[in-house]
Amino acid sequence: MSDVRKVVLAYSGGLDTSVIVKWLQETYGCEVVTFTADLGQGEEVEPARAKAQALGVKEIYIEDLRETFVRDYVFPMFRANTVYEGEYLLGTSIARPLIARRLVEIANETGADAIAHGATGKGNDQVRFELGAYALKPGVRVIAPWREWDLTSREKLMAYCEQHEIPVDFAQNKKKSPYSMDANLLHISYEGGVLEDPWTEAEEEMWRWSVSPEAAPDQATYIDLTFEKGDVVAIDGRSMPAHEILSYLNRIGGENGIGRLDIVENRYVGMKSRGCYETPGGTILLRAHRAIESITLDRESAHLKDELMPRYAELVYNGYWWSPERHMLQAAIDQSQTTANGVVRLKLYKGNVIVVGRQSEDSLFDASIATFEDDAGAYDQKDAEGFIRLNALRLRIGASRGRAND
Amino acid sequence: MSDVRKVVLAYSGGLDTSVIVKWLQETYGCEVVTFTADLGQGEEVEPARAKAQALGVKEIYIEDLRETFVRDYVFPMFRANTVYEGEYLLGTSIARPLIARRLVEIANETGADAIAHGATGKGNDQVRFELGAYALKPGVRVIAPWREWDLTSREKLMAYCEQHEIPVDFAQNKKKSPYSMDANLLHISYEGGVLEDPWTEAEEEMWRWSVSPEAAPDQATYIDLTFEKGDVVAIDGRSMPAHEILSYLNRIGGENGIGRLDIVENRYVGMKSRGCYETPGGTILLRAHRAIESITLDRESAHLKDELMPRYAELVYNGYWWSPERHMLQAAIDQSQTTANGVVRLKLYKGNVIVVGRQSEDSLFDASIATFEDDAGAYDQKDAEGFIRLNALRLRIGASRGRAND
Amino acid sequence: MSDVRKVVLAYSGGLDTSVIVKWLQETYGCEVVTFTADLGQGEEVEPARAKAQALGVKEIYIEDLRETFVRDYVFPMFRANTVYEGEYLLGTSIARPLIARRLVEIANETGADAIAHGATGKGNDQVRFELGAYALKPGVRVIAPWREWDLTSREKLMAYCEQHEIPVDFAQNKKKSPYSMDANLLHISYEGGVLEDPWTEAEEEMWRWSVSPEAAPDQATYIDLTFEKGDVVAIDGRSMPAHEILSYLNRIGGENGIGRLDIVENRYVGMKSRGCYETPGGTILLRAHRAIESITLDRESAHLKDELMPRYAELVYNGYWWSPERHMLQAAIDQSQTTANGVVRLKLYKGNVIVVGRQSEDSLFDASIATFEDDAGAYDQKDAEGFIRLNALRLRIGASRGRAND
Amino acid sequence: MSDVRKVVLAYSGGLDTSVIVKWLQETYGCEVVTFTADLGQGEEVEPARAKAQALGVKEIYIEDLRETFVRDYVFPMFRANTVYEGEYLLGTSIARPLIARRLVEIANETGADAIAHGATGKGNDQVRFELGAYALKPGVRVIAPWREWDLTSREKLMAYCEQHEIPVDFAQNKKKSPYSMDANLLHISYEGGVLEDPWTEAEEEMWRWSVSPEAAPDQATYIDLTFEKGDVVAIDGRSMPAHEILSYLNRIGGENGIGRLDIVENRYVGMKSRGCYETPGGTILLRAHRAIESITLDRESAHLKDELMPRYAELVYNGYWWSPERHMLQAAIDQSQTTANGVVRLKLYKGNVIVVGRQSEDSLFDASIATFEDDAGAYDQKDAEGFIRLNALRLRIGASRGRAND
Repeated sequence: MSDVRKVVLAYSGGLDTSVIVKWLQETYGCEVVTFTADLGQGEEVEPARAKAQALGVKEIYIEDLRETFVRDYVFPMFRANTVYEGEYLLGTSIARPLIARRLVEIANETGADAIAHGATGKGNDQVRFELGAYALKPGVRVIAPWREWDLTSREKLMAYCEQHEIPVDFAQNKKKSPYSMDANLLHISYEGGVLEDPWTEAEEEMWRWSVSPEAAPDQATYIDLTFEKGDVVAIDGRSMPAHEILSYLNRIGGENGIGRLDIVENRYVGMKSRGCYETPGGTILLRAHRAIESITLDRESAHLKDELMPRYAELVYNGYWWSPERHMLQAAIDQSQTTANGVVRLKLYKGNVIVVGRQSEDSLFDASIATFEDDAGAYDQKDAEGFIRLNALRLRIGASRGRAND
Repeated sequence: MSDVRKVVLAYSGGLDTSVIVKWLQETYGCEVVTFTADLGQGEEVEPARAKAQALGVKEIYIEDLRETFVRDYVFPMFRANTVYEGEYLLGTSIARPLIARRLVEIANETGADAIAHGATGKGNDQVRFELGAYALKPGVRVIAPWREWDLTSREKLMAYCEQHEIPVDFAQNKKKSPYSMDANLLHISYEGGVLEDPWTEAEEEMWRWSVSPEAAPDQATYIDLTFEKGDVVAIDGRSMPAHEILSYLNRIGGENGIGRLDIVENRYVGMKSRGCYETPGGTILLRAHRAIESITLDRESAHLKDELMPRYAELVYNGYWWSPERHMLQAAIDQSQTTANGVVRLKLYKGNVIVVGRQSEDSLFDASIATFEDDAGAYDQKDAEGFIRLNALRLRIGASRGRAND
Repeated sequence: MSDVRKVVLAYSGGLDTSVIVKWLQETYGCEVVTFTADLGQGEEVEPARAKAQALGVKEIYIEDLRETFVRDYVFPMFRANTVYEGEYLLGTSIARPLIARRLVEIANETGADAIAHGATGKGNDQVRFELGAYALKPGVRVIAPWREWDLTSREKLMAYCEQHEIPVDFAQNKKKSPYSMDANLLHISYEGGVLEDPWTEAEEEMWRWSVSPEAAPDQATYIDLTFEKGDVVAIDGRSMPAHEILSYLNRIGGENGIGRLDIVENRYVGMKSRGCYETPGGTILLRAHRAIESITLDRESAHLKDELMPRYAELVYNGYWWSPERHMLQAAIDQSQTTANGVVRLKLYKGNVIVVGRQSEDSLFDASIATFEDDAGAYDQKDAEGFIRLNALRLRIGASRGRAND
Repeated sequence: MSDVRKVVLAYSGGLDTSVIVKWLQETYGCEVVTFTADLGQGEEVEPARAKAQALGVKEIYIEDLRETFVRDYVFPMFRANTVYEGEYLLGTSIARPLIARRLVEIANETGADAIAHGATGKGNDQVRFELGAYALKPGVRVIAPWREWDLTSREKLMAYCEQHEIPVDFAQNKKKSPYSMDANLLHISYEGGVLEDPWTEAEEEMWRWSVSPEAAPDQATYIDLTFEKGDVVAIDGRSMPAHEILSYLNRIGGENGIGRLDIVENRYVGMKSRGCYETPGGTILLRAHRAIESITLDRESAHLKDELMPRYAELVYNGYWWSPERHMLQAAIDQSQTTANGVVRLKLYKGNVIVVGRQSEDSLFDASIATFEDDAGAYDQKDAEGFIRLNALRLRIGASRGRAND
């Protein structure tokens, strides 16, 4: 293991990754560079500096990546109306490629020959970190301590801390929680604990970002979202950068009990797992994006997007953000978004996101054609007969040859 | 037009189709057979008999098709988690193939050489009726009066009634409504009127089947749905036939403000149209079905279903229920449902359908593998390294050849 | 019909379209603009000028579009490895959007309010011309004489000629043929006549562009094709513009008995039809393009292309070249072609196109990894175990729950 | 390693798997059961008995699986027109699931707790064997000696033979070849040696099953293939079981220089590899199957099959034959084949498979509709106008809103 000289670690400042710093120094006898990012997880990142220093780290990267995260990762993903397995908005998945990219870039800057992360060997995140790293720096060495070490229980971990004088209060920057959690501007997730029984309802006290629908205001909230090329650029007419848009929607969504999700999902590594998610802003975004597309997208573009979406979602979930096939799909999706401009009006009420209006200068909705009233010749109803008869021709030929179409 | 001797008409008993009876008799000089079906639209169908008789109809078919409708059409469609354009549950679409089938069967029984319907030349329903009819009886003649006659305004229609002594009270069995409406056990739909401006919010008084989330009870309702092969067969442990299941879910869903939808959709005939829908039971069904699948379906089966679904939805929407390609997709879908058995527990509250539990003897969820605790060797974390490295191999080779994966 | 003042006609100079000129002048009392294009059909286009003049046409467009045709239509289509129904290389289909575009552009230049073409009401070409025209000039009037007039037999057509003094020798610029034919640089097609019985073998004398495999040289021909971004740019190291590339391949392919095809295909208008095609250059191109992709494309890019291709082919066949969904797919496909560079060596022999070598500076083929010999650690065989075990995990869980995977 | 008591080995009787027998006995101290199958590889399997006995094996399975192989694996795959990456007919891939199944069944019969195979750690076959085994017997132990041992060169292997007195003539039942080869009734494959340079043309002497097109007869051969439900059941009117059909086609195809293929393919384990294949019968089958489908399949069924095929091919190639998703696709495919009945006439000539006729009582080809002659009203050309106009409507609306469709 002596061949690793320097490793860049995705460092949260928490207990686990602090242990990893020490373990890497000891096990590999190498220098550790820490990288801590503010992705909107709702905790200060600056305290990580002192902790890293206390662990003897000399090169410390602490970065605010919130705008990049939302603008270049979250928003492109939402252009595809991306949902994994019909429900999950991919809040954890979409943050990983950005972290992988920064790990690799920092490795290049600091001359490190390895990267490391604190994800376990059972989950999707290890895959996402490592596929990203390999795609961007093919010769990189990846160290995943959870797959290597024998600190397989909380007790062993605490013993290691004591033995190596890692301050226990490193663990205290998170509220105590029986759940394994992850957060960024798109969502907060919960796994483990009582959730491991899929028949057990999640406890109310678990949720952190949203009130329950019951506890939400009795008065509905209306908002207008302005879209440009498929991305929200303004709320109620006020322009904001991408991360402030999402932040605003998280707050207003959370207040209205929006965005809770409780599912059993299929992990890429082959097992099913129960997860609970709060995605207030994302839930609003998805609904609004479909609404703006409903008046501005051509039918066949929209249908093609719907057919490609599950594949795109799978790629993001599985960790293939940095892959040629994701780029191909993104090219097709982005091609469709040039006209996804306009305003969507939403009513938020106790968990509900209700579309109540949409308008656009790029609207393809043409009341003069669709109207039940006289359309002044905009549409010739007689055209429908030929349309139907030729679409039916193959079915009629089949039936006349004795094919049972029923 | 003298070559039509007898025509079977989809007859609602309302004013429009009563005019059609008379118009067919006059224009084609033919006998008219009426067919009126109870699909759960919530109105008595028996009154149609006297009206038809008054119009001189001798062969009158009045049928309760509710069970067939839900069991053989609605439920098979829900096995696919079918949603059109991300939102619409296809309530109108799925009723048409059954009506088309009965029209054709009655034509065969009565020796009729034509069928007729009251759908306009602008909508999807004409296509669905006629594709179905042609697929099942390729030589059938189809008469679509709205595409042929000149009764293009309400005034002309009323004048025709007066002239032909069609009792005006034929119009009175429906509540007056400014909307074009359609209902069956799966949903009720609204089009036209103020909805023709997609920026205008639907009025509260429009909705008929559900209370608003605001008006729903402050207390949540819990229900358990039991699935067998992908279909709900019992509610709270009580077995019911398919149509009673849906009827029960409509009632309980409507009481809890569930299932309202307001969208702009793409019609098969090429235009966009605004529609509002109430689908209380269907909205519950969809959520519950995904939940039972989440623990009982293999990952790749589920993903394949998700990729095929938009195509399947398009087929149903466009009227290709009676087509070989729909049968192909149904064969694949049904193949996946043999293990979709178990119970889903839902919480219904002010418009929200919240999955709170799922259990099944066919569950593939294995807490002993997924657990964050010690798994006693059920899963070897070291396997993940090889898994990731080989999945990354093509990306690494590409990157090492200078491909920019970012 | 008096509202049409000027119409642009796709004019071949042959008898049928000459009749159409006269018929349009008479029936619509309008001015006719003729448009004749050299797409490589192998006949002089200049003679069309005198004929059009003789028919009283004042605005005559005669254009050599061969380079545009191959560069902007044929080559982009081949980037997708496009094949319709597993066999057909879309030679007729791909020429139509270019003609539609020029008809519309000429209509705009000349102030014409209508376009006209000589395609029948049974075929795909009417659809392709008209969808293209409507997509590019939505208010255009389209006149399709074959769907309107009563000149439904050869006799009536000849009578019309005599009556209107259209010189009979207009018919003589084509060799007499019992087949309906169409040709351009990509192919020549044959329909009708004895081909209407799909059990009857095509006669040897029907084929015009290629010798039979039997008559081809006993000596094989080798050629090297150089690709840049998915397009062939040089043959045997000699750079040529796109149309000369295809022309060269047609000649050398035809000499070697390559590119004959005899199929029954499904028309967009709903019927099956028998067609025979000679596509010597295209057949070579397709094989070579797949070969260059085989060493330069990432696996998942290639597989995604394969999954999208049938949809793309259907769009081209059905006439949706000028549609947003085709542009979406093209964006994805073109994204994949940046690395499709290199040289493919082919052996042409009596109908066979045999790939015998491929090389590229962008090759992803890595003999040091794939080798059966010692790979010096480039690939760790132990990785395969984890790869297999995690890919198998869902199957194992299923089987252990009693699922019969067989 | 003492926990393995008995292992079933896929035993060819050759040198490599003979070494494996000994190595398993030594390394695992376990009993070895050998399984040798005749899949039509063209070598006697019975000699494997004496060799196994000489190695001390007590339970020896030698089976003729040719009919099962073709009937239950090859033919179902061909119903899908399965081709991997546009070229490869999956000859090796399709044999693996059958072998995996028999290994597992024999393990169950003999009370073995493990299976073993002689595939290397770089190839696809290990994946196919092991995914199959895990899917059918989830708790099975798999031993892949090539991933475990240190006999990584031919020299070490020969030394092991000498040391363990494995007769060297075990190696002599194959003709000496510089290639890694695999054969069964569907094909014979070649990898390695000079093929590791994709620019090098394969040597003529490499090919074993077919003559070169140059060496094939100057006279064409005609054959008629009779299909029932998508499978060939008779040749020239003579009924034969599945494996005799394929055997016959291999012979006649090989004689006519048909079925050679030279490609670079993408392995599931992540690398590209060069392979040469001879698939004479399969090449004929594929062409003929498409031809019978061309007249008997509904257009949309055929197109749906074409869109699903690449996925199906990928599943087979990657080793997921025994998976729920393959069964789903098979259900859809088989649903389409009930009408794939009839006769296809082929001309075989120097590498070419030329379809010259097809006929069927289930034909959907209707000359009376498709004809260029008078169709007596079977098709109303005026229908085309409405068909086109409504299909164009969305494009026209888009264009009239300023969308550039070009």
